[in-house]
Amino acid sequence: MVAEILCVGTELLLGQVLNTDAQFLSRQLSEMGIELYRIETVGDNPGRVRQSVRAALERCDLLITTGGLGPTEDDLTKEMVAEELGLEMEEDAASMARLNEMYAAWGRKMPENNVKQAWFPRGAHILKNARGTAPGCAVEVDGKIVIVLPGPPYELTHMFTEEAVPYLRNKLGYKIESRFIRTIEIGESDLEMQLRDMIDRQTNVTIATYCSLGEAQVRLTVKCPMGDDPAKYLDPVEAEIRERLGKYIYAIGETDMPHVVVGLLKRAGRSVALAESCTGGKIADWLVDVPGVSEVLVEGHVTYSNISKERTLGVRHDTLEKYTAVSEQVAREMAEGLHELSGADYCLSVTGIAGPGGGTPETPVGLVYIGLKTPRGTQVEKFNFTGDRYRVRSLAALRALNMLRKALTDIDEVTISD
Amino acid sequence: MVAEILCVGTELLLGQVLNTDAQFLSRQLSEMGIELYRIETVGDNPGRVRQSVRAALERCDLLITTGGLGPTEDDLTKEMVAEELGLEMEEDAASMARLNEMYAAWGRKMPENNVKQAWFPRGAHILKNARGTAPGCAVEVDGKIVIVLPGPPYELTHMFTEEAVPYLRNKLGYKIESRFIRTIEIGESDLEMQLRDMIDRQTNVTIATYCSLGEAQVRLTVKCPMGDDPAKYLDPVEAEIRERLGKYIYAIGETDMPHVVVGLLKRAGRSVALAESCTGGKIADWLVDVPGVSEVLVEGHVTYSNISKERTLGVRHDTLEKYTAVSEQVAREMAEGLHELSGADYCLSVTGIAGPGGGTPETPVGLVYIGLKTPRGTQVEKFNFTGDRYRVRSLAALRALNMLRKALTDIDEVTISD
Repeated sequence: MVAEILCVGTELLLGQVLNTDAQFLSRQLSEMGIELYRIETVGDNPGRVRQSVRAALERCDLLITTGGLGPTEDDLTKEMVAEELGLEMEEDAASMARLNEMYAAWGRKMPENNVKQAWFPRGAHILKNARGTAPGCAVEVDGKIVIVLPGPPYELTHMFTEEAVPYLRNKLGYKIESRFIRTIEIGESDLEMQLRDMIDRQTNVTIATYCSLGEAQVRLTVKCPMGDDPAKYLDPVEAEIRERLGKYIYAIGETDMPHVVVGLLKRAGRSVALAESCTGGKIADWLVDVPGVSEVLVEGHVTYSNISKERTLGVRHDTLEKYTAVSEQVAREMAEGLHELSGADYCLSVTGIAGPGGGTPETPVGLVYIGLKTPRGTQVEKFNFTGDRYRVRSLAALRALNMLRKALTDIDEVTISD
Repeated sequence: MVAEILCVGTELLLGQVLNTDAQFLSRQLSEMGIELYRIETVGDNPGRVRQSVRAALERCDLLITTGGLGPTEDDLTKEMVAEELGLEMEEDAASMARLNEMYAAWGRKMPENNVKQAWFPRGAHILKNARGTAPGCAVEVDGKIVIVLPGPPYELTHMFTEEAVPYLRNKLGYKIESRFIRTIEIGESDLEMQLRDMIDRQTNVTIATYCSLGEAQVRLTVKCPMGDDPAKYLDPVEAEIRERLGKYIYAIGETDMPHVVVGLLKRAGRSVALAESCTGGKIADWLVDVPGVSEVLVEGHVTYSNISKERTLGVRHDTLEKYTAVSEQVAREMAEGLHELSGADYCLSVTGIAGPGGGTPETPVGLVYIGLKTPRGTQVEKFNFTGDRYRVRSLAALRALNMLRKALTDIDEVTISD
């Protein structure tokens, strides 16, 4: 099945909005084994929307549109799709009833123009919108499928996952399942090299690599008959990849480093405290974004100035003078002082030069020391990161959490599944 | 001038990469007064790239392509553009010399296939790449302009701004300048309503509104003859908007709240310290992302647990028991205790319920108290934010910095220009 995506919205052409819908849908289609050939964006212009719908339907089997489902005159995606497919528009009674209910619940009268949100091309399958007023729809004519989705990402992602995916699965007649293997401490090209022969001889299970700041992921995707168990195909491939990349794998599934670390701390019943200099609260911010972190996080300190390192963490003035703030010794004293202060089981410290200024030949921009005091002792690791201030700070935060993760799992090979 | 953008890259169709290039270029074109009618994305497929180039050139005056300038066989954007325009490819001696120099400086032999990065359609104007190996180019045939840019955003943004904009300005024969007015504490629809009549009667200076999390911006754009001073047109419109929205305006120009606050602290020679509970280090992280923040930031504390609020900030156990951690009283004691501890001139505290759990009828999710101790006293403000955990935490961080900004400017109307 060959697909195209058509995004409708003048705000996209003016650059007012970043098109995250297109990336979300691209990934979803890729995971379902549907080939995407083109993404197009046009404004709220009837002529161009209609022209794009027509051209796409000549080329592909599945067209997914986003946006243009609002109540105003500008919003005309459904209408243009109906015209191109030669279908009348008609009211969907259930959608109209739901719109009336929503406005009644808000204690407001439904604006006249909002009625059009309950009109669809004749014969359309309605895709319910649990997060907004505008339902979407799926229409099939002569073997071509058009799926019409709202623009707001909060509505679109939910509707696609809950309503459109089951509809498409049914049309596809086969099952698709993906599994992500998340790695760290290995670059994307190294990762690809290690898996090159597997990628080249891939058949039923496809293997793809993705990279994001400081990490790389391997995605396994399998297409199998409806009654079959995808795990049967995915498990042996995962096992082979674990054998090759075991020590780089930190998680399987849709998760990230902060969630993994908070999960490990909860499972172990251990607490953590943070002393951040160059990361400046980023590690704390990431951890606090995980709901329920209060069970394990005692506190964090952003000891950005030397005086704060001395006063809060008890780093010795002599040590700062002799070795400077960016040194193995200071990272160690930060972690150990933090333990004295907080009593947390795991105490993580970071000190480094984030740039762009402040570098010297001895302590260049990107030099970062990360200290970790555990119940078994204190270790300090030295890193040389490259890139701008944001990148250096983000990589330092990620690698600090990775040190904590390794200490919590103790052996490199152990990873957690979600 | 009507433009289209063509993004080339299979990674975009697989959803591996978010297409920030398209948004960047859309905004830039909009600021230059160039109308953008369409954005298209295709994979590294010669047939589809060529077909898209052809269709775009039939519709528009200016085509901007991104991606497909790498050294591999897959990279063929320049070649397809040349074919469509009926131009031979030829080597550019200066680009070849620069490639050789770069590899010599790295102490590496240039791979054979990299030579193609120095080949361009005959007659092309070369756009230098200060941040990578692949130059771009601009080609004009029969009044149609094609601008070919590399895909990596770090390279593309720089090349567009430094190389393509001057080229386009010259072609346009007029000058375009934009100015951003940044507001807070007013919603986008209110903002638009306040400016409705100005937007409706806009002529030479166009007015557009943008919104992002917790803020709204007004963009003024003027198109004027090359020798003219854009400020002559922008100043009176800005003055009228200031008159209407004065108290909501926090900055003019390309900046953000953390930069504005750090700038105000530096100018005043004052220091700041932070005590964060629900924001969990986010305010510290934002401030530390501003280079040179060390001049003004003494320290931050993420006092996420009650024990940490007592031990680090000296919040009284009684106060926590009597009023709970999310209360005006605790926010006040946090700010005042932080002042005792740090001696900073301005001490900011945040305590609240970020959700999704933890809410009660008395302290619902989204309830946040922000405290600020200044040399003139302590104030506490209460907020009720809506949305998910990320949104509540981000809004709390933004409004905390805004309180600090207002205390530093003292009167609402004063804003700074960058």
